Amino acid sequence: MKSLRVGLCGVGNVGRAVLKTLISSSKLIEVQGGVHFDIELVGARRGKKAVPFNGINVTKDLKEVATNPNVDVLVEVIGGVDFAHELVITAIKEGKHIVTANKALIANHGNELFKLAKENKVEIGFEASVAGGTPVIKALREGLVANRVKWFAGILNGTSNYVLTEMESNQSSFEVALGKAQALGLAESDPTMDINGTDAAQKASILAALAFHVPFDFSLVSFEGIEEVELEDLKYARELGYSIKHIARGELENNIACVSAYPTLVNNESLLSQVDKEMNALEIFSEGVGSTVYYGPGAGPEPTASAVIADLVDIAKGGWELDINSDSSNKLQVSGAQKAARYYRLQVKDEPGVIAKISSVFGEKDISIDALIQHEARSKEDIDSVPVVIISGEITDNEAVKLKNILEDLPEVFPGVKKFRIHSSRS
Amino acid sequence: MKSLRVGLCGVGNVGRAVLKTLISSSKLIEVQGGVHFDIELVGARRGKKAVPFNGINVTKDLKEVATNPNVDVLVEVIGGVDFAHELVITAIKEGKHIVTANKALIANHGNELFKLAKENKVEIGFEASVAGGTPVIKALREGLVANRVKWFAGILNGTSNYVLTEMESNQSSFEVALGKAQALGLAESDPTMDINGTDAAQKASILAALAFHVPFDFSLVSFEGIEEVELEDLKYARELGYSIKHIARGELENNIACVSAYPTLVNNESLLSQVDKEMNALEIFSEGVGSTVYYGPGAGPEPTASAVIADLVDIAKGGWELDINSDSSNKLQVSGAQKAARYYRLQVKDEPGVIAKISSVFGEKDISIDALIQHEARSKEDIDSVPVVIISGEITDNEAVKLKNILEDLPEVFPGVKKFRIHSSRS
Repeated sequence: MKSLRVGLCGVGNVGRAVLKTLISSSKLIEVQGGVHFDIELVGARRGKKAVPFNGINVTKDLKEVATNPNVDVLVEVIGGVDFAHELVITAIKEGKHIVTANKALIANHGNELFKLAKENKVEIGFEASVAGGTPVIKALREGLVANRVKWFAGILNGTSNYVLTEMESNQSSFEVALGKAQALGLAESDPTMDINGTDAAQKASILAALAFHVPFDFSLVSFEGIEEVELEDLKYARELGYSIKHIARGELENNIACVSAYPTLVNNESLLSQVDKEMNALEIFSEGVGSTVYYGPGAGPEPTASAVIADLVDIAKGGWELDINSDSSNKLQVSGAQKAARYYRLQVKDEPGVIAKISSVFGEKDISIDALIQHEARSKEDIDSVPVVIISGEITDNEAVKLKNILEDLPEVFPGVKKFRIHSSRS
Repeated sequence: MKSLRVGLCGVGNVGRAVLKTLISSSKLIEVQGGVHFDIELVGARRGKKAVPFNGINVTKDLKEVATNPNVDVLVEVIGGVDFAHELVITAIKEGKHIVTANKALIANHGNELFKLAKENKVEIGFEASVAGGTPVIKALREGLVANRVKWFAGILNGTSNYVLTEMESNQSSFEVALGKAQALGLAESDPTMDINGTDAAQKASILAALAFHVPFDFSLVSFEGIEEVELEDLKYARELGYSIKHIARGELENNIACVSAYPTLVNNESLLSQVDKEMNALEIFSEGVGSTVYYGPGAGPEPTASAVIADLVDIAKGGWELDINSDSSNKLQVSGAQKAARYYRLQVKDEPGVIAKISSVFGEKDISIDALIQHEARSKEDIDSVPVVIISGEITDNEAVKLKNILEDLPEVFPGVKKFRIHSSRS
């Protein structure tokens, strides 16, 4: 049986779950994975009292784990970027494999880390960095190895998905829904990175590097969070047969890869529209296979531990031996030329001819209107204005922004036009 | 870069797709998988004319592929059991790895094949045998390696799922729906094995061997096909918030594993209920991770080729080195003690007191009634009888059969009581 000596840094919820599983499921992992693990050294800043397991060597000096000659692989689950980066660099230079759940680390330093790993002939496992316990990295890298990926689209941030689901199903405001997520431990006390789209965009950039073999460059990833989504939008989307989800997307066309993460309308016939609460799901469309979808818990200590240990088993068996982002003629660019249908919600003056005028703007730009809803005024206080919702034909991001600006400049349109993408599952 | 010399037997649709992908995507597979493949020899009974590719060595003697010293791995895509079995045994004894898409082969001869493979230190890849291009074997064996699987439930036969979807969405009869599936190439001219549940049951038995480490024994797998499902059932199921799907299921409780495949009511809140047409999906519930779901095309030449090549890449990198069904205290038994809620549809005499009498049968057996529908008579011709649909509490298969027999013995109940399981997604 193969064996591997593990050093682990960070004994928060995830670190403890990794240790617990390695200890309590060691026999199961031997049967199922054919690998025996020894926990060689654990790095915990608070020392032994932070590690609720017996017979484990603990050091308060995390760097010691990265340099200990008996450690074959460093499990980095401390989180944050700067110190994790330093630690991982040190360990790689010492010839140690890395397993990390740290998407920010990979998204920000992926190029350097994978280059250094190659030079030092070590592996970096990062299954836990995207979609938690759902093995999407494995599916993309190994399961679909024979196929060219054309696009992927995923619900990769559980906090955002919980908030949107809660808003839609209980007619809660964004603030109330977020508060509930925090109370349930599904959102951090500072949920900024989840809510503003950064977390999902980082995950999408990792998937894009794997899927399209492009270098990491987070400055080229466009994203927005869910703050702009209002109850009204969820209501109109539903009326039109859509749910609004925060969709992280990557696509490749003519060797140009684009990565983005935006609130997006998803047709209710798509499996992604059925992914509720804190769950994650990723749809991968590849030539040959077509669409496959992977659904599961995107976070949580035990699912994350499951992914970490899957990586450890793979590394014990020889790893992947790949440059994840080399040898490609593909280039990462800012999203802009990719087309998608759009949802616009406008508040307009309740007077004759307004719809005709708005429609003519679309017509002049040669943009089709695929659906249009106009209801009566929302309330007696709001008697002078009515909401108009339009689904456009497929246009680029640039065209979509221009169109929004033109609409907002119309004297009949009130400021604050809402605009969201519509998920396309075309091949 | 690692390399592997491939021998392939069988150049039907799948065999040709494997060859085409290995040839046309060789560079992509090198980049994505880090493996170079040489197509050493192809076995085609009709000889060279059956192989529409240049520069390939072809033999009409399939055994030659299994014994050729330059072949590292035999890809068996001829289908059928007996000759495939002979061929694979020969190849293994010659020290060749095996990759097969043949679920019947694995389900019927798995114990012998994996034992022989272990003795000869070769690998058997069978990703393509379940769920086609969707990497469910990989997810189960590698992605979830750290977790104890408690149950899985899948839609694993595309033909059956297409027929059920077609019946439900177009109110087609079983025969019309099956005819349409055949016209579209989604059902074979003799669809018996798909429609009667054998195919799904074989796939479930493969998943069970992996998930629960139990030996193969197809005689212990219980299954029925979709022939019993009528339009009426689909209609009542929908009224109660369910779809009817053919669900292949495995579960482990107290070291007893049970495998079955039955038409099953699936709550519309479950992702499985949303899997339509010829698509496959598998839900795996494991301790630690909870539910993950894998969705994609379950058949077709290119998806199957994708799975075959994923196995080839894994084998080139060292394979899995596992006894898939050894070293376990778990036992496979005929399903019987596992509990599930049930759907009963009865045609009863339209007279006072019938519902009370039926309800009292449930009461006497201490079986709860969770839902009951009684509508008016179906037609003027049918004025004397009315349908009654009952959802029971959770009972075992044995109790469910006994209850059905008692109900059928009631003078108020017409013969032909329908009974289906209800999918439970409990942990």
